[in-house]
Amino acid sequence: MKRHFGNIIVCAFFILLIPHGLAAQTDPVFKPISADIIKLTSKVLGEDRKIYVYTPPADTSKPDKHYPVMYVLDGDNHFSLVAEYCRYLSRRDVNVVPEMIIVGIPNTNRTRDLTPTNSIFDYDGNPDTTVNSRYKSSGGGNNFLQFIGTELIPHIDAHYKTQSFKILAGHSFGGITTVNCLLTQPDMFAAYIAISPSFWWDRRYLLNLAAEKLNNDRVKNKIIFYSDANEGMSNGKSAFHDDVIKFDSIITQRKIAGLDHKYICYPEETHMTAPVKAYYDALRFIFRKWDLQP
Amino acid sequence: MKRHFGNIIVCAFFILLIPHGLAAQTDPVFKPISADIIKLTSKVLGEDRKIYVYTPPADTSKPDKHYPVMYVLDGDNHFSLVAEYCRYLSRRDVNVVPEMIIVGIPNTNRTRDLTPTNSIFDYDGNPDTTVNSRYKSSGGGNNFLQFIGTELIPHIDAHYKTQSFKILAGHSFGGITTVNCLLTQPDMFAAYIAISPSFWWDRRYLLNLAAEKLNNDRVKNKIIFYSDANEGMSNGKSAFHDDVIKFDSIITQRKIAGLDHKYICYPEETHMTAPVKAYYDALRFIFRKWDLQP
Repeated sequence: MKRHFGNIIVCAFFILLIPHGLAAQTDPVFKPISADIIKLTSKVLGEDRKIYVYTPPADTSKPDKHYPVMYVLDGDNHFSLVAEYCRYLSRRDVNVVPEMIIVGIPNTNRTRDLTPTNSIFDYDGNPDTTVNSRYKSSGGGNNFLQFIGTELIPHIDAHYKTQSFKILAGHSFGGITTVNCLLTQPDMFAAYIAISPSFWWDRRYLLNLAAEKLNNDRVKNKIIFYSDANEGMSNGKSAFHDDVIKFDSIITQRKIAGLDHKYICYPEETHMTAPVKAYYDALRFIFRKWDLQP
Repeated sequence: MKRHFGNIIVCAFFILLIPHGLAAQTDPVFKPISADIIKLTSKVLGEDRKIYVYTPPADTSKPDKHYPVMYVLDGDNHFSLVAEYCRYLSRRDVNVVPEMIIVGIPNTNRTRDLTPTNSIFDYDGNPDTTVNSRYKSSGGGNNFLQFIGTELIPHIDAHYKTQSFKILAGHSFGGITTVNCLLTQPDMFAAYIAISPSFWWDRRYLLNLAAEKLNNDRVKNKIIFYSDANEGMSNGKSAFHDDVIKFDSIITQRKIAGLDHKYICYPEETHMTAPVKAYYDALRFIFRKWDLQP
């Protein structure tokens, strides 16, 4: 006989999933991505933040095993996909990335936290002067990085079995957040993932910052993966694409040898489908030289 | 101070995930892929089978909404990844595949169920005469398809809000199972996914069957996506790859116009990493003409 001693999820959600009163029970074979959901009271942000934390299954043969940590912005959208990737790709019979702790940071005020400057200029470079402009709250990006660096990372390191190797991953506004971190506080992470970064922000503020700050000494031994997709592309060209190309050319023209970098353009993907491919390619790139021997 | 009010999973697993004895509770914000786990007593197979069923979140504005169904072989390995893909890709702001019901079929005796013939010939074409050869139980594939067609599908259709559009997806032995279904019982599904199908099985039994059976009338209005990876490939060549090329050439040379087909080779992926890319590409291919208007 089999025993059910399952998982489970929230009551209301769970009940909706069980149709027609069939006896459905949980089972140890199927293990969905599960996460601690912790609440941090942030002095830096002046608010409570929820944080999702996925940890690999315990390895009883290595009770003191420690893990790299990947921090995922827009955690409400991308956390479970990234955790699923890491779980599958670190299986013994797949074994192309190490087991990792995945930390998802869901948003409270996305525009505030994921923009480096206060700016009302929209995608086309026009000022958005409407009363309810979503840009009004922008510019909290450096404060948000301070939250990550001085509150979140220390908390995760104190409560989980972490290695020092850390990745910061983001998409769109999250992408400019990871680039901003590389440019302004490069030592916070070992590797950065910027998927379709919104370089248009504030009249290309970050491209100017990159031109000013990117040099060999500053980003030595760091890793960055960046990508874009078909964001308004016509005949292989778009302003969005041009910006990513420009960022890429700053890195390649300056021959920043210490910065291990890879750029992929996904012309067949949209702004929203590209993360499915990019997180995977980024993980494969970052860990391509990793020693995955057990 | 912080409060932990996480979700979570099973007892033993659960405790390991909660560091430092913090209290963890459920939270509706983070929704991992969850599934009904149902038990079917199969007369065809003479055994009980567990089945995983993911259903999209209920749409209160469309209480009678029905969904396409995707059946995933090797459910123990691939179900949660495919469900995660479908959940993300069917979001309103992504919207490239429809919301779907995903049915995962975990294995009991994989070699028995996912091989079309009883054969002791191994990958190199040599007979495996060892006492404990795993091939001894092979050849239950057609019986397994009968289970799917006469027991599983009717059960799912009776208990879930299904549309008639159904996909069968498999990898490796699962890949030859989907090809075998297309060749022998093409009307069971509308679309087939064969990721790195093990055409070497039984001295290329299925390639011979394809040469015999594939014709326009038989597979009209069907869809198939098939792929392979770097399975022993050297200089772009391997016996595994040659087999998939041969299958592809049967389709293309016969100009089977009614069969909507796509073949992708992933030379940079291994047999085990390829499914990450292939399930995604297959879904995009199958639904590229789908009307995704709400």
